[in-house]
Amino acid sequence: MSLTSTKMPSFFSKRDLHFNLYELLNVEQLTRYPFFQDHDRESFDMVLDAAEQIADKMLRPLLTVMDRKEPQLIEGKIRVYEGMKEVTKRFGEDGWINATFSYEEGGQQLPVTVQNAAAFIFQAANYSASVYPFLTTGAANLIRSFGSKELIERYTPLMYSGRWQGTMALTEPNAGSSLSDISTSAEPTQEAGVYKINGQKIFISCGDHDACENVVHLLLAKIKGGPAGTKGISLFVVPQKRPTSAGLTENGVITAGVYHKMGYKGAPIAHLMFGSNDDCLGYLVGEPHKGLNYMFQMMNEARVGVGMNATAIGTAAYYASLSYAKERPQGRLITAKDPAQPQTLIIHHADVKRMLLFQKAVVEGALSLLLQCGLWSDLIHVSEGETKQRAELLLDLLTPIAKSYPSEMCCQTTSAAVQILGGAGYTTDFPVEQYYREARIHPIHEGTTGIHGMDLLGRKLILHGGKGLNYLTEEMLRSIAEAKQSEGLTNLALQLEAALERVQKVTGSLLAIAQRDKELLLADATLYLEFFGIVTIGWQWLKQATQAQKALSKTHAENERNFYQGKLATANYFFEYEVVKTISLAERLISHNHVTIGMHPDWF
Amino acid sequence: MSLTSTKMPSFFSKRDLHFNLYELLNVEQLTRYPFFQDHDRESFDMVLDAAEQIADKMLRPLLTVMDRKEPQLIEGKIRVYEGMKEVTKRFGEDGWINATFSYEEGGQQLPVTVQNAAAFIFQAANYSASVYPFLTTGAANLIRSFGSKELIERYTPLMYSGRWQGTMALTEPNAGSSLSDISTSAEPTQEAGVYKINGQKIFISCGDHDACENVVHLLLAKIKGGPAGTKGISLFVVPQKRPTSAGLTENGVITAGVYHKMGYKGAPIAHLMFGSNDDCLGYLVGEPHKGLNYMFQMMNEARVGVGMNATAIGTAAYYASLSYAKERPQGRLITAKDPAQPQTLIIHHADVKRMLLFQKAVVEGALSLLLQCGLWSDLIHVSEGETKQRAELLLDLLTPIAKSYPSEMCCQTTSAAVQILGGAGYTTDFPVEQYYREARIHPIHEGTTGIHGMDLLGRKLILHGGKGLNYLTEEMLRSIAEAKQSEGLTNLALQLEAALERVQKVTGSLLAIAQRDKELLLADATLYLEFFGIVTIGWQWLKQATQAQKALSKTHAENERNFYQGKLATANYFFEYEVVKTISLAERLISHNHVTIGMHPDWF
Repeated sequence: MSLTSTKMPSFFSKRDLHFNLYELLNVEQLTRYPFFQDHDRESFDMVLDAAEQIADKMLRPLLTVMDRKEPQLIEGKIRVYEGMKEVTKRFGEDGWINATFSYEEGGQQLPVTVQNAAAFIFQAANYSASVYPFLTTGAANLIRSFGSKELIERYTPLMYSGRWQGTMALTEPNAGSSLSDISTSAEPTQEAGVYKINGQKIFISCGDHDACENVVHLLLAKIKGGPAGTKGISLFVVPQKRPTSAGLTENGVITAGVYHKMGYKGAPIAHLMFGSNDDCLGYLVGEPHKGLNYMFQMMNEARVGVGMNATAIGTAAYYASLSYAKERPQGRLITAKDPAQPQTLIIHHADVKRMLLFQKAVVEGALSLLLQCGLWSDLIHVSEGETKQRAELLLDLLTPIAKSYPSEMCCQTTSAAVQILGGAGYTTDFPVEQYYREARIHPIHEGTTGIHGMDLLGRKLILHGGKGLNYLTEEMLRSIAEAKQSEGLTNLALQLEAALERVQKVTGSLLAIAQRDKELLLADATLYLEFFGIVTIGWQWLKQATQAQKALSKTHAENERNFYQGKLATANYFFEYEVVKTISLAERLISHNHVTIGMHPDWF
Repeated sequence: MSLTSTKMPSFFSKRDLHFNLYELLNVEQLTRYPFFQDHDRESFDMVLDAAEQIADKMLRPLLTVMDRKEPQLIEGKIRVYEGMKEVTKRFGEDGWINATFSYEEGGQQLPVTVQNAAAFIFQAANYSASVYPFLTTGAANLIRSFGSKELIERYTPLMYSGRWQGTMALTEPNAGSSLSDISTSAEPTQEAGVYKINGQKIFISCGDHDACENVVHLLLAKIKGGPAGTKGISLFVVPQKRPTSAGLTENGVITAGVYHKMGYKGAPIAHLMFGSNDDCLGYLVGEPHKGLNYMFQMMNEARVGVGMNATAIGTAAYYASLSYAKERPQGRLITAKDPAQPQTLIIHHADVKRMLLFQKAVVEGALSLLLQCGLWSDLIHVSEGETKQRAELLLDLLTPIAKSYPSEMCCQTTSAAVQILGGAGYTTDFPVEQYYREARIHPIHEGTTGIHGMDLLGRKLILHGGKGLNYLTEEMLRSIAEAKQSEGLTNLALQLEAALERVQKVTGSLLAIAQRDKELLLADATLYLEFFGIVTIGWQWLKQATQAQKALSKTHAENERNFYQGKLATANYFFEYEVVKTISLAERLISHNHVTIGMHPDWF
């Protein structure tokens, strides 16, 4: 309003995406596999450029207005921001929804790694808008993986076109984190595979809106008479309007409400009622009672996706605050306090640099882990044997980290962005307060941080006899050995080595009580997740530093040298300020003092 | 909307206020001093009860609606929520604005400690609404402390009545953290003490609104021809309408805008223009060029006040999430996973208890430090000699902590409150998302956290030859010695002892480089502030635990036993989960690796 101009800052770094794809992951290795053989670096670059075009011209300009004009429920229908019609159409027409699928399915056989990099660009430009197409991708993926030929043919083409929205309909008023308690029921009809659905679902992202022609819910329900708990959960396609020979007809799905929320306002989150009129049909996907297993495919993808969303929001906030710090004069350096001299730009203050380094360290560290997860997904899809198994176990082990580390940390990095702008950052004149609000959803949806902590410590670590952890340790030791070859990186390598030993010590100490006291084992699972997450991202930074050091010795271009120097300095930051936190975390994790378990509810 | 009822939860604990005032601080000791001799515990209790009445009946019901109906600038005047007229009137009529002032001034000679406890209740009920009266208190306090008899008589009675709003007008577009750069000018007129004011101020809380009759700005400006920097700053009373023999007349103050912001929406934050019409008069307070010294009186009070605001918001969020956790069934205990059994209330999950303990530990730890600061203020006012000096130096040293620890930490505790509610917490159906947004202003206003870090490490520690730190160390050692007498507290006492040694080691290491490299000394001042803050609050928890342990041995009443058991368990939490963080912080603080200083702006 009254401060300096709000000219649009850059919101991500394509240079960093290239660094990840081509220098760290060597994503071109995938083109050796037949499925990806038509691709090369040029085609990958074109995908990123196309994504940037849409993000910059179409999505970023809607960021603020979509926050201000929330979805409203009007006469039983959720109305979203008018411009979303064009956006969903464009996503469909340009083939973004099914880009990773096969040619036969109309896809482009694009690696997930590259698709995720493109999605990251969309998310950084406008998180809410980016949710619509990729929810559809996930839902369609479930149908094509587990559904009948008929379901696939009837539903997926219209989903790929962007005309039909896909959703995940899991949560119910009494079943959020505890999915085993869903009560939505499915009653067989006379037609095989067709059930009458009855129940309600809450918090359904894109559960109803007027920027599409129909909504296809991938819904969890219990077939009457089935087993209790998660073992009785089945998966259904439940369209808002069902296709019949006479065209689309209403399918007994009522939108009972739209949630108003702190952020993420551009996407409609619905409360839905199914079958109040006794005429809501659901089409069984795959076999009865296997719904949760199927859904986990989508959830695991979605979890990595949530980590990416959080990272993208954190990245946009980082660039917004960086741009402000480079323009805003305020105060003087500690060493030059003469009030007669002009003020310095705030980027020269050590504390501002610390807050920028914090953001850069978290978001670029998280991004490299997330793209690594994409590569593992691709390798699982196309490779075999040891390569495939390694990718499977590493992805499985690190999904809780890939989801939760960025989700938790980007609440803090967006906070640092607000702090850099000071009072201006708290106003709606700048985008950082919106990023701060939007970041906060991620530790909640797709499994809360607490759930992921228990998943890691109570399940993933010990799965397959701990083979995932062994693979990860091998990978880290290899990175450490490589870094030690590089002059100037020995110190960082030793720090990661020490952190890894800390992981082993803490993990050993916890697993030793696993049989004896599972409650105590899991009481601090959230802290263990944080601990493990920091070390994992430390590993990513050591890899980035190693590559940067190598590249630096070969380039004279100033921009490039700045880029690599930035990587080295940020790696140093990460170890000095973040990895050091694992000392205290380890101390707490091996203490086994029953603090929380011993707390009586009446004592609060 | 679709979840469980949003029945109004309690938003603070009067029991905890009593514990602080009567058991920890023995606030009744003040009644030995003549100024407070008419008071006793009964009169203090009445003050708290009266505050609770207003908070519960008048302020809390407006919390949500004031967030939704933001102040608007209409035809040059900021319109605030209609109900604020009645609220400001009531605050004036009931004597809250000048309660701590002398009988001669119409006050009640109430101890600041008790007044702050009452303010805490108002703030927990409705932070925005509570800002209006206490800003006026601070502004009036400046006039009565440093202004002429004429200024006092003309302005303060109408401010005490709530009819005239007081403000602090410091920040300018180019002078936020760097106050030395203000450019608002004051030109002498022919009348002694009267100046023409010209300039603009931004981010002025309650800078203009229609719930009062006039606004009195305590404004910083530079008298033309004065010294550069902070030494040329003078303080003025600049009324929005100036009193003349013919009544109130416009004083050339224009409201250029109202800020729209992430939270704290119930209070109007204005952008003001002074003297564009060349007819804005300012009345000098005290002597020329001493404005910043005077203002610091108000700022120091305001800083403790900000800490209290943050703590109050954190407290309200704690109780909101506690109440939810006691009502919401979800999932089953680790030890009882049978899906056929009913779900457990989430308060029984260790991770939920951890998030509740975190909130309780932070807000109750901060509250006891803040009320301790109030007692020091009172002792400075009424005592003499060693008692007075000790109070002065301790308050001075710990003001950066009292302001920043709660401000930073309550961003995190309100986040934990959101997390406990899960998806529901992200919606506007529950108040926790509002608390999360409102908490975020506090690390920014009244000096950012970075400024306070530098104030502590660069100034307060070494002031008076480090005597403040010596006093604090003595106090902590006394608390440690006392705790060691108590069976069961030895472990906590030893942990505080170790943390205190860590403070000495880190402080020594930093001060050793102070002369050589001031930039390096201050580069991590924010981390030092965090480090020092945790130890300070650890000290408060050791004192609370010692008192709780004593009281526990003397009471059989179940409620009381629960209260004290809760204190002991929370103290244990604070040491196990928070004080332990000082190990890593110390590691970083003694590393002296020039991470941030060495970072070149082009490397970002």
